[in-house]
Amino acid sequence: MGPAKDMEHVTIGLIGLGTVGTGVARILTEHADRIARRAGKRVRWKWAVVRDPAKIRDVKLDGVRVTTDTARLIDDPEVEIVVEAMGGIDPALNIVLDCLAAGKHVVTANKALLAEHGPQIFAQARAAGRAVAFEASVGGGIPIIQALGVALAANQVQNLAAILNGTCNYILTKMMHEGLAYADALAQAQELGYAEADPTLDVDGTDTAHKLAILTQLAFQATVKTGDIPRQGIDRLQLADLKYAGELGHAVKLLALAKFTTAGLELRVAPTLVKRGTPLAEVRGPYNAIRVVGDAVGDTFFYGRGAGMMPTASAVVGDLIDVMTGRAILSSLVLDLWAEPAHTVARTPPHQIKSHYYLRFTIADSPGVLAKLARILGEHGISIASVIQHDTGDDAPDNSAVPLVIMTHLAVEAEIHAALGEIDQLDVVRPPSVCLGVED
Amino acid sequence: MGPAKDMEHVTIGLIGLGTVGTGVARILTEHADRIARRAGKRVRWKWAVVRDPAKIRDVKLDGVRVTTDTARLIDDPEVEIVVEAMGGIDPALNIVLDCLAAGKHVVTANKALLAEHGPQIFAQARAAGRAVAFEASVGGGIPIIQALGVALAANQVQNLAAILNGTCNYILTKMMHEGLAYADALAQAQELGYAEADPTLDVDGTDTAHKLAILTQLAFQATVKTGDIPRQGIDRLQLADLKYAGELGHAVKLLALAKFTTAGLELRVAPTLVKRGTPLAEVRGPYNAIRVVGDAVGDTFFYGRGAGMMPTASAVVGDLIDVMTGRAILSSLVLDLWAEPAHTVARTPPHQIKSHYYLRFTIADSPGVLAKLARILGEHGISIASVIQHDTGDDAPDNSAVPLVIMTHLAVEAEIHAALGEIDQLDVVRPPSVCLGVED
Repeated sequence: MGPAKDMEHVTIGLIGLGTVGTGVARILTEHADRIARRAGKRVRWKWAVVRDPAKIRDVKLDGVRVTTDTARLIDDPEVEIVVEAMGGIDPALNIVLDCLAAGKHVVTANKALLAEHGPQIFAQARAAGRAVAFEASVGGGIPIIQALGVALAANQVQNLAAILNGTCNYILTKMMHEGLAYADALAQAQELGYAEADPTLDVDGTDTAHKLAILTQLAFQATVKTGDIPRQGIDRLQLADLKYAGELGHAVKLLALAKFTTAGLELRVAPTLVKRGTPLAEVRGPYNAIRVVGDAVGDTFFYGRGAGMMPTASAVVGDLIDVMTGRAILSSLVLDLWAEPAHTVARTPPHQIKSHYYLRFTIADSPGVLAKLARILGEHGISIASVIQHDTGDDAPDNSAVPLVIMTHLAVEAEIHAALGEIDQLDVVRPPSVCLGVED
Repeated sequence: MGPAKDMEHVTIGLIGLGTVGTGVARILTEHADRIARRAGKRVRWKWAVVRDPAKIRDVKLDGVRVTTDTARLIDDPEVEIVVEAMGGIDPALNIVLDCLAAGKHVVTANKALLAEHGPQIFAQARAAGRAVAFEASVGGGIPIIQALGVALAANQVQNLAAILNGTCNYILTKMMHEGLAYADALAQAQELGYAEADPTLDVDGTDTAHKLAILTQLAFQATVKTGDIPRQGIDRLQLADLKYAGELGHAVKLLALAKFTTAGLELRVAPTLVKRGTPLAEVRGPYNAIRVVGDAVGDTFFYGRGAGMMPTASAVVGDLIDVMTGRAILSSLVLDLWAEPAHTVARTPPHQIKSHYYLRFTIADSPGVLAKLARILGEHGISIASVIQHDTGDDAPDNSAVPLVIMTHLAVEAEIHAALGEIDQLDVVRPPSVCLGVED
C-alpha cells in the first residue's frame, strides 16, 4: 500500500542531468511512493535545468519543465529545494548562493565547491535560514557526513584515515594485485569509466584533499583550505614500491589522514602503507572507506561505493528526504559549519609529527653503503625496524644499482626529510629516494 | 571557547548506573560543553535511578538526585528525556511506557525490550507524540540505526548480513585463529568480560535474533517476533568445521541474515561460512559489523565495537543529542516503526530458499560411500561443488570413521534437509551430519 496520493507535497528543482542528476531523477520517478513514505511528503519535481534540452535522456520527464535558464527555477517561489548536480565552481557557486538567497534549501554533491567556498555558502545559508545538505560530496553512498555530524556527535574524533578516491584505489588495486604499471592501470580505469579523460585532479590527490577538507570541518569544526593540506598523489608511485610494501605485509593506499593530538591537528593526503588484513588495506577496486576513531566509540569503519550514478544518487535523495522531514535544517543550526570567524585548530608543526616510514634507496651494489645510510639515519634519531636488500634482476636498467628498502620505527617527519636530503647527496646513492608513511 | 553557560537547558533522568549508564554519565559530566555545542542546549542531569544508592560509583554525581524510586523521575514535569539503561524486560517495559505516557522522550539501548515489545512501546510513543531513540540497541557504537532509518532512506534494502554479537565473534575468532575448542574460547571470553556468567542468550543466537528483529523493522518495515526467526547458535559448533571451512577459504561467523526477494523476506540467525578476504569474514574479536546492500547504494559495510561501556554510551548520547535538537521526533513521525496493523512482508517459504551449503558427514572409511551420498544429493537436485575427504589422524576417537566435507552449488534448503534426513539413515553414516549455509 503506497502513501496517500493527496498528501502534502514539496516542489523541487534539479540542476544538471549528467550522471548524478540522472541517478537522482531515476529514484524520484521510479520510487516516488517510497520517497513519499520516508519523507512524509510527496516530491513534485517541477524543474530540470540542463545545458542541452534537445538531448535524449534515459529519464521520464513527464510534467517536468526543462530549461537552460537557472533563473526560471530560482525565481519560482514554489520551489523549496534545489538539487545542484552540475558540479564545478563556476557557475555552481553563484547559482547555489542565489538559490539560498531566494529561500531555497540546497542539496549538493559538489565537493570542490564546498571545500573552496564553504564559508561563503554557509554564511548565506545561515542568513537565509536554509539548509545545505551534502552527504554525496564525500564517499558517494557511504553515509559518513551523517555519521560525523549526527550519529557520532557524542565523540571527539581523534583520528580519521580514509580512501576517498575510487579512481586511485582502482589503479592501486590493479598495480598491487595484477602487477600493472601505473600508466596501464590508469588506462584500464579510463576504459571502465572510473577515471576521467583528464584524471589529474584524481591522481594528484586534489580530489581527496577537497573531501578531507569537508571531513575536517565536520570532525574538528576546523576550516582548512585545500591548498594548505600537504598532498601527494599516486601519479609518481612506482610499481616496485607496491611490490616491496607487499613483501613487508602492507598495501599502499592513497589516504586522507587527520589526527587530533595535543600538539594540534595533523592533516595530509599521501600514498601510505597500510598493514594487510586491516579493513582499510583490504578495500579494493573503486570502493571508498573511512576509518574514524572517536574518544568514546573507539574504532569505526565505513565502506561502500564512493562514486557512480546510483550510489551518489542514494546520498543525494537521502539528503532530500532529510531536508523534507525538517531534520536537515535542525542539523544545520547546531553544526554551524564553516562558521566565521573560522574555528581554527592549531596545525601540528612538522617537527612534531611522528610516524613509521618506508624508505627506498637506489644504491651502488658495493660494501659499506648500508652502514653509511644507517649512520645518517641514526644521527637524526631514526631507528631501523627492518631492511630488505634485493637483487635487481636481469631486467633492471643498471645492474650496478640495487634497491634498499628500510622500514623505520617511529620517527619525526622533519628528521626523516633532513636525513633523506643528506643521503641523496651521497655518491653511492642515486636520488631521489622514496619515502612513504606507514599507517598504524 | 565553550558554549554560553546561560544557554537553554534540557532536564534529563538516567535509569540505571550499570555499565552503559556509567558510560553515559561520564560523557555527560566530562564533556558537558561538547554536548551542549552539538545539541544547541545544555543537559541538566537531574535524576539517577539506581538499585543501591550506597554503592560507590566512578561517576561525579554533583547536583544529581539519586533515588531508587522511578516514580520520582516520572512524576517530575521538568524531566523531558529519560535514558533507560537498566536492561531487561521487567520492569523496564512498564517504566518506558510510563515515561512516554508522562510526555517524556526515551533513549534506550534495550534490544530485548524493543524486539519483544516494539508495537506496544511505539504505539504509546505515537499516542504521546514522543520519540523513542535506540541507536545503542544494535551494533553498539556503530550508527546502523541512523544509517538504515535516515541516511539510506532512498534505498530499498535488498540484503543484510551482520555480525551482531561480540561474544560469539570473539569465541569464533579464538577457535578459528588459535585452534581453541568452543568451551576454552568461551572461558576466555568470560575472563575478559566479553561474555556473561550465563552466556546462553549470546551463544544460542537469541541476542542476535533480537537485534535482527530491530534491523528488520527499520530495513523492511516488517514486524517479526524473535521466536519466528530461524535461529542456530554457536554452542554446538565443532572446531573441526571451522578448520575445514578455513581449508576451503572461508571463515565461520554467526550471522544475522535478511534477504528481500520477490518470493518474500528471508530471515535467519546461523553460523555461516563467509569467504575469506571479504569484509565480514575479516571481522575479528569482539567487533560487530553490518553489510547492507541497497538497490541504489549497492554494497555498504559498517564496522565497530558492538558493546562495552563507552561505545554503547557513544550511541546513547548521540541519540540524546538527536532528541535535544528535535531531529529524533521528526524521524519517529516518518519512520512509523512497529506500526499497527503490522506491516507484514511475506516470508520466503523454505522450499524457495536457495543457498550454497557446507555439509560434513562422518562416514565409514569404506569404498562406495561417497557414491551413495552423491546419489541421494543428486536425487534432491543438489550438485556438488567440491569434496574433501580427510584422514582422521591418530587422535580421532574411532579410526574407522572419517569426515567427508562437501560444498554444494546453489541448492534448495528444503531439499538439503530432506537429503540429510535420508543420508543420516544410512548404515555407513554416523549421524547427525553437519550443515552450514555459505554466504555469497
